[in-house]
Amino acid sequence: MARIDAWGSKAVTVDARLIKQFGLSTFTDAQKKPFDNRFFTRGLVIAHRDFARIAKAIKEKKPFLQMTGIATSGPLHLGHKVDIDLFEYFRSLGAKSHFGVCDIDGYVSRPDNKVPSLEKAQDYAVQTVQHLLALGVPEECIYVQSKKEPRYYTFAFELSKKITENTFKAIYGHLDLGKLSANLLQYADILHGQLPEYDGPMPSLTSIGIEQDPHARAARDLVRRLPYNMVLPSFLFFKHQSGLKEGSKMSASEPDTAIFLTDSEKDVRRKIDRAFSGGRTSVEEHRRLGGDPDVDRAFEILLFHHPDDAFVADVKERYASGDMLTGELKTIVKEFLVDMLKEHQKRMEKYRKTAERIVHGA
Amino acid sequence: MARIDAWGSKAVTVDARLIKQFGLSTFTDAQKKPFDNRFFTRGLVIAHRDFARIAKAIKEKKPFLQMTGIATSGPLHLGHKVDIDLFEYFRSLGAKSHFGVCDIDGYVSRPDNKVPSLEKAQDYAVQTVQHLLALGVPEECIYVQSKKEPRYYTFAFELSKKITENTFKAIYGHLDLGKLSANLLQYADILHGQLPEYDGPMPSLTSIGIEQDPHARAARDLVRRLPYNMVLPSFLFFKHQSGLKEGSKMSASEPDTAIFLTDSEKDVRRKIDRAFSGGRTSVEEHRRLGGDPDVDRAFEILLFHHPDDAFVADVKERYASGDMLTGELKTIVKEFLVDMLKEHQKRMEKYRKTAERIVHGA
Repeated sequence: MARIDAWGSKAVTVDARLIKQFGLSTFTDAQKKPFDNRFFTRGLVIAHRDFARIAKAIKEKKPFLQMTGIATSGPLHLGHKVDIDLFEYFRSLGAKSHFGVCDIDGYVSRPDNKVPSLEKAQDYAVQTVQHLLALGVPEECIYVQSKKEPRYYTFAFELSKKITENTFKAIYGHLDLGKLSANLLQYADILHGQLPEYDGPMPSLTSIGIEQDPHARAARDLVRRLPYNMVLPSFLFFKHQSGLKEGSKMSASEPDTAIFLTDSEKDVRRKIDRAFSGGRTSVEEHRRLGGDPDVDRAFEILLFHHPDDAFVADVKERYASGDMLTGELKTIVKEFLVDMLKEHQKRMEKYRKTAERIVHGA
Repeated sequence: MARIDAWGSKAVTVDARLIKQFGLSTFTDAQKKPFDNRFFTRGLVIAHRDFARIAKAIKEKKPFLQMTGIATSGPLHLGHKVDIDLFEYFRSLGAKSHFGVCDIDGYVSRPDNKVPSLEKAQDYAVQTVQHLLALGVPEECIYVQSKKEPRYYTFAFELSKKITENTFKAIYGHLDLGKLSANLLQYADILHGQLPEYDGPMPSLTSIGIEQDPHARAARDLVRRLPYNMVLPSFLFFKHQSGLKEGSKMSASEPDTAIFLTDSEKDVRRKIDRAFSGGRTSVEEHRRLGGDPDVDRAFEILLFHHPDDAFVADVKERYASGDMLTGELKTIVKEFLVDMLKEHQKRMEKYRKTAERIVHGA
């Protein structure tokens, strides 16, 4: 009997197509081995550009940077928690870590009906900082885009000289000027840590969703044109968590597709009850054929967020074998989420004042 | 016999065509009357947008802003001195005055072979600040673009959301991303003084060359789209000083077309000797027909820069009547310039340290 690969997936994904199309590197088992973290052990990190440089720095205890950010254009959901958890993991491995709370980006890259003012983006920024602090990111690793020192902004403007209209159109297929500004800031976010006024040239890691690779390529292209002798930044691409409904993505604009970090217990229970399931149409069929964890949105939440590898593998096996019913799986997920979010929201509340100070000043 | 208009010009100028094409307002004598300054008395200020608002504020001693700037992409010449002199004039009339030393603009809007780095633009910025201080602009009225507070930069990025690719192309006919950034900063320079974090909404004056009107229109268009209740900024358009050679403009890239504020006595004498003249081919012809001050580049320097209206009117009349020969005119201009620049350069030198501090920090 073939051994079950606890972390394998039968689904032929969009990810596989994008990895090929973008020319990204995938991981060998040997490359993943030193990284004892669910993102690696469960195959949630699926591709990279130049990750070897980072692995080497970690192994040799050499300095390296970690530059990550979130545009503040809405409340954070579980998908955002992936960015933050990955950030915390590489920080624990010694990265000089900078997390950008991108309020200007959040405002300029979103339509007015979504983010009508910079002020609104800054309200979201306060919440985002609360989440970061509650998830363990130290204050000194957090910066707010609209509160940076002048060198950061002048650098963003410098970058505009090094990227042409054609490059931009080739990468993004459009030329919306607000988005262009947001992109200049994103490149600045990824690269400014290597300026002489900051930490200077060194390996640098940014973890992003795979569909963000055009930004990665643009940032690497800029490094080749800039006079600062920067090291080409490395990128890690993580799998996206699906939306709770069939065929959906987690999206702040459709609240029932996502679990938000601020959701109430009632919301969580309702959303999980309604989430798309890999269970069968009848108990008999389920017992006979087993559930399909690869498409089950409740199981996916455990896969991305539950800390215990053995527990998650056990649930997967029992669900796939028909031993565990959909209702039982959903109960496990609901209890896990309700506990985690209650704890998180309690911590968040304690950081409100600090977050307001960080975003709005003393 | 017809009375000679001391300040009239026979030349049908590009200016007249642009005033019509851009739909600018021209001044009536009554409008100019309160402004006892060579720019008004000699017709050097040729058009405006909404200047009445400023005239009213001055008359009623109400607060108004003056926002002006120079991109630091080379050494300053006499043409730049016009900006600064006009700035000082309106400052003397009570404007809350802010002069931008635009180093980011100087770098991003010029090709690399002209300004290869932000550092180079900052070298020019030091010189520019020295000129400003030497011409009487107080330190507190000067700001350096790369040393502004975050609100200024976030505002420039905000503006990118309010201007569309089509507006931009319609106004400028092109879409160079470096120039786009420079333009966002220019709009921020013109408008940021009216933000609530600065002086708030009030009439605001910016003096520019007439070919810069597309920027004026874009800035006014942005005010209509922004949520800050700003007053539409007023613009004053001044005549451009010609280059020293026939058909040329004063240009830093062709040194012999311009008198630079740092030129040596020897340079000044050589350039004026070679400057395009309105004199006749022989002394006899000159005595008979008179010189043409309207095309004479040496005379134009007196017109733009000599402080004494009566003296300049007298020279014009004597030159036009044939009483004064080209050589005599050029001698007057050379002595005037050499004295003025020697004095200016001596003052400049005293401000070197201060200028370095302003541009590079303590």
